[in-house]
Amino acid sequence: MKFTCSKNDLNEALRIVSKAIATKPQTPILSCIFIQTQGDKLELQATNYELSFICHIPATIEESGDIALTGRYVLEVVTKMPGDTITFSMMNDDKTIHIQSGQSKFTLLSMNAAEFPQIEHLAGNVQFTLKDNVLRELIRKTIFACATDEGRPVFTGCSLTIEGNKVTMAATNIHRLAVISKVFDQEIGSIQIIIPAKILAEVLHMPGGDIPTEVTITCSYNQISFSTPSVYMASRLIEGQFPSFTNVIPRSFATNVQVDRAAFAAAIDRVALISRAGDYNVVKLQFSNGNIHLHSRNPEIGDADEDVAAEIDGPDLMIAFNANYLIDVLKSMQGDVCRIGLNKELSPAVLREPDDEDFLYVVTPVRTAH
Amino acid sequence: MKFTCSKNDLNEALRIVSKAIATKPQTPILSCIFIQTQGDKLELQATNYELSFICHIPATIEESGDIALTGRYVLEVVTKMPGDTITFSMMNDDKTIHIQSGQSKFTLLSMNAAEFPQIEHLAGNVQFTLKDNVLRELIRKTIFACATDEGRPVFTGCSLTIEGNKVTMAATNIHRLAVISKVFDQEIGSIQIIIPAKILAEVLHMPGGDIPTEVTITCSYNQISFSTPSVYMASRLIEGQFPSFTNVIPRSFATNVQVDRAAFAAAIDRVALISRAGDYNVVKLQFSNGNIHLHSRNPEIGDADEDVAAEIDGPDLMIAFNANYLIDVLKSMQGDVCRIGLNKELSPAVLREPDDEDFLYVVTPVRTAH
Repeated sequence: MKFTCSKNDLNEALRIVSKAIATKPQTPILSCIFIQTQGDKLELQATNYELSFICHIPATIEESGDIALTGRYVLEVVTKMPGDTITFSMMNDDKTIHIQSGQSKFTLLSMNAAEFPQIEHLAGNVQFTLKDNVLRELIRKTIFACATDEGRPVFTGCSLTIEGNKVTMAATNIHRLAVISKVFDQEIGSIQIIIPAKILAEVLHMPGGDIPTEVTITCSYNQISFSTPSVYMASRLIEGQFPSFTNVIPRSFATNVQVDRAAFAAAIDRVALISRAGDYNVVKLQFSNGNIHLHSRNPEIGDADEDVAAEIDGPDLMIAFNANYLIDVLKSMQGDVCRIGLNKELSPAVLREPDDEDFLYVVTPVRTAH
Repeated sequence: MKFTCSKNDLNEALRIVSKAIATKPQTPILSCIFIQTQGDKLELQATNYELSFICHIPATIEESGDIALTGRYVLEVVTKMPGDTITFSMMNDDKTIHIQSGQSKFTLLSMNAAEFPQIEHLAGNVQFTLKDNVLRELIRKTIFACATDEGRPVFTGCSLTIEGNKVTMAATNIHRLAVISKVFDQEIGSIQIIIPAKILAEVLHMPGGDIPTEVTITCSYNQISFSTPSVYMASRLIEGQFPSFTNVIPRSFATNVQVDRAAFAAAIDRVALISRAGDYNVVKLQFSNGNIHLHSRNPEIGDADEDVAAEIDGPDLMIAFNANYLIDVLKSMQGDVCRIGLNKELSPAVLREPDDEDFLYVVTPVRTAH
């Protein structure tokens, strides 16, 4: 086996597939990146059986073949290589790989490539395509609301529901819920699955240019894959029933608020300096007279108070939230203005953006002693 | 007490003095930053009894007084404040401090300022001044050679020797030694002390502009202080006898080498990818035919080889070093070229810069099986 390719292309591909290598691989071969020649391309693979990633890059192939190199070392070596191109060649002993770039020469020991559990492309019952920017928006606006605690697995992923031409992504940790829906021109199918946040975080970082490209999504009953011409990412799905959330979403509000998103986020961030030392990071909000008054208190540290101007339509209200649950959603939004819908002191609130009917966020207030 | 000052000035001063607060303070008052008014200035103090830092900043004082606030909270609050100026005022209860900037208001609980162990300026038997850029050079070229292992305290600091008009700073961990000397126009005094690397690292980060400013250094038998008009940093000295190193420095060399510093450093950095998985991070250097051949090997990973062009004057030599001991000194140098003086395979080597007779670095080779 012998090939030459761009150092940057190879480095990027190694960086992507190495994310599928477990911190503590079950067997030595799973610590490897499998590299094989394919026509005028190289295919790189890595898997931990839960995540499986494949990348393709262009290369000049002098001699076809396959190798399996420890992911950590090959990535480090390629990252530090001095030249623009890099050449890999297998030595006569079939066990060592010679890597050269500029004045630098490395030989790395190859494991037995035949032992590598090659990844098979998923054949699913539902397949559809999304523009990568749309897919990223679906993920970015929900993934932050997942639970990180592994105790209840269904909350560590995003629910994906497809009904006809409507795609809905949702995530919750019980105390808050993020939901985004997109309606497409054509029928897509029918499916209801829970995708682990881990794979979605990697899909979010799939390389993408300024021009939106198509991502093909394939789902089976227990797996999902995301593929572009150069990258393929597959993952197991989370088993279990995602809770029905439609009834949780308030449809009407006594008090409607519009506030500058950046100013509101910065104020909560400051007031949370005091509250976050407590167990629930509680920030109290007083909506009245065209003003949101933010307050937090910790008897061992002190108090924080801040005012943010807002358009308030409806009765005054005092309501308290976990500051993180507000900061997270405000960061995920992009517009200048945030809309808040409120009912009573202990009723869930809804946050949305003025020009975006696709997305909404429900957050449950915290009960406080006055 | 009431004052108003620049948010940025206060933030910078809090950041500096907070470095003297221990991670686990012995008593609650030592977790505080003590702030007192002084004419048209504020004085900030913090200490852990080993390090003691003081900063002065300009302020508009409306009412004089002193307060003691938990360093962590006051630093975080000031860092996040929205305005350009910030006002502190003590409430009538004498226990809470009101902090305001723009629309943000915090009240922080003050500890009893009278309990704070106020720092007394050191009255030493030797006092001299250095330009801050000269002081930084003395530190930067030696501090990296200190041992980090607390087992032998004398090696965790830099030795400062003053004899007449000559100042010498040195550091070693037994396996390598960095020495820098400066000769001044006037007599300074006579002293031989060991300064903890901790305080020197902070002095390195003292604020300094483009124009060199004077730093006054005061030494007593067991303490040292560094002061500028705005910052005062004092530390205990390390007790013990720093080893005599003059006899360790080779004075003549069989083989003299000149090599491009950046190219040599980059090559060692790459070759060390293989060696650093081993116990001693051993890189072998073959000096011959206008070339340095670098080689490292780990039987479980593979080999690395690289060539760097060099001017070599004298017999060929194969010699091995801990890669880190070479990388550290090459990073601390500034010029384009590094000079290396070599004798035998197991004799210490000397690294210096062509135009700098003040600095030298001695490194002991590693014994390897061929």
